[in-house]
Amino acid sequence: MTIGFERITIIGVGLLGASLGLALKKRGSKAAITGVGRRQESLDTALRLGAVDTASLDPLEASLEADLVVIATPVQQVIPLLELLAPRLSPQCLILDVASVKKDICAHARRLFPLPRRFVGCHPMAGSEKSGPEHGNADLYEGTVCLLECSDDLAEETLAEARSFWEFVGTRVIEMDPAQHDDFLARTSHLPHVAAAAVAQIVHDSGASRSMIGQGFLDVTRIAASRAEIWRDISLSNREALLGAIRELRNSLDAFESALEKSDAREVEAFFVKAAEARHKVISS
Amino acid sequence: MTIGFERITIIGVGLLGASLGLALKKRGSKAAITGVGRRQESLDTALRLGAVDTASLDPLEASLEADLVVIATPVQQVIPLLELLAPRLSPQCLILDVASVKKDICAHARRLFPLPRRFVGCHPMAGSEKSGPEHGNADLYEGTVCLLECSDDLAEETLAEARSFWEFVGTRVIEMDPAQHDDFLARTSHLPHVAAAAVAQIVHDSGASRSMIGQGFLDVTRIAASRAEIWRDISLSNREALLGAIRELRNSLDAFESALEKSDAREVEAFFVKAAEARHKVISS
Repeated sequence: MTIGFERITIIGVGLLGASLGLALKKRGSKAAITGVGRRQESLDTALRLGAVDTASLDPLEASLEADLVVIATPVQQVIPLLELLAPRLSPQCLILDVASVKKDICAHARRLFPLPRRFVGCHPMAGSEKSGPEHGNADLYEGTVCLLECSDDLAEETLAEARSFWEFVGTRVIEMDPAQHDDFLARTSHLPHVAAAAVAQIVHDSGASRSMIGQGFLDVTRIAASRAEIWRDISLSNREALLGAIRELRNSLDAFESALEKSDAREVEAFFVKAAEARHKVISS
Repeated sequence: MTIGFERITIIGVGLLGASLGLALKKRGSKAAITGVGRRQESLDTALRLGAVDTASLDPLEASLEADLVVIATPVQQVIPLLELLAPRLSPQCLILDVASVKKDICAHARRLFPLPRRFVGCHPMAGSEKSGPEHGNADLYEGTVCLLECSDDLAEETLAEARSFWEFVGTRVIEMDPAQHDDFLARTSHLPHVAAAAVAQIVHDSGASRSMIGQGFLDVTRIAASRAEIWRDISLSNREALLGAIRELRNSLDAFESALEKSDAREVEAFFVKAAEARHKVISS
């Protein structure tokens, strides 16, 4: 398997960006990879790990000669970067991102780029609570799913290029409407983060110590250890859908609370039965 | 290390009871272990795995000759069993339980048993989302913590016996007031279960499929796969403290929601910062 790109620029050399460079090289890409960062220290780490071949602090200059630009920055920086790059890059250059919120970015790109649009919104569902190029891992994308924007203004050929790029690093690609993507992610990812964060604070405030907590707490709150700025940006970028998901959580808690207040054993049990079935159905779907 | 008991009866041969029998044998206890169950099938499994030496369907008869009785049933059965056993067992016999809710059980035992009381409320914090003797594991208790009731009507000697029993199977023992125990557990364990169950249902109802969910969802909701009857009983047994914990969760969600509605980046970030710090502090405490 090969990819046709010869000069790839990865803007953002954090966990996702550095892992992408490492994955491309491990799978035999001969492309020259330029990494762009805001801090020389991260760039030095990415260079040292062999995730990128050259490094730059200037996203525009580093992208002018590229045939593929991947924006792997935190979500809030994607739209400003698109505005910077759109008027200047060659019409042949394909632009992808990796942000975990898609509706606003894709809508913006739709207005920004001339047709045939050469930006495709992507969300490779890879990551961990760790961050930074020092945690870069050539197999981070292996076996994961990459959600790809479907839109009527994207050429088949452009979508096919984006698809084969992600498949090259080991992901399985699924196309999805950006708004639907955000609604799903608000529930599958962003709401669990908020709930985990709330539980972590409540446990701390109760005065409970390490010796009193079990695997349940550790599992439920693991993602609460993620970087706060990342989750601030994701929350703000997916504000509307996340507010909807929080309302659903409140409704669910209200129903459980009301059953528990009445000591209604049947209803309390039904709540847990439905949850176990729901998890099983989601996982085996 | 040895334990002085010669005839141990374990009432309830589920995951905890069967693992206890296996742990005692693996660590060299020569005690004759009788397992008590409600279904012959579970008893047969426990016998086949070598978790118990003999089996019985009658908790009273099986306990009359014992010098240690461990009640390893679901929480709702503990008080009825104490009422059955208290008037009939020898004053030398030590009685322990393993229920994860303690206030009502310990208060009941205080009224039920003559002094010096020979029942000690225990909560070994071991387990998994799996259940049944077929998942019994001789190392289930190894490295875990066992919370032990502290009470002014317990003789030092009785507490010391309970403590050395749990240490024998590999736990670290911490004494705690039963009401405080229940308040802590409502937050460290029961609330995370309720939140995980709610999130699992919301994700299912959103129509999201396996390919759209990441490790975050899997981790946060793992405990939602636990047995519904167990969590029904725990919730009802720790009703008051759990209702308090749910109120705290609602307050926390309200605060986050209000910050998000205002798109208040500083407050949204502070929520996640506090959560990450809180988790870190709890884990390193």
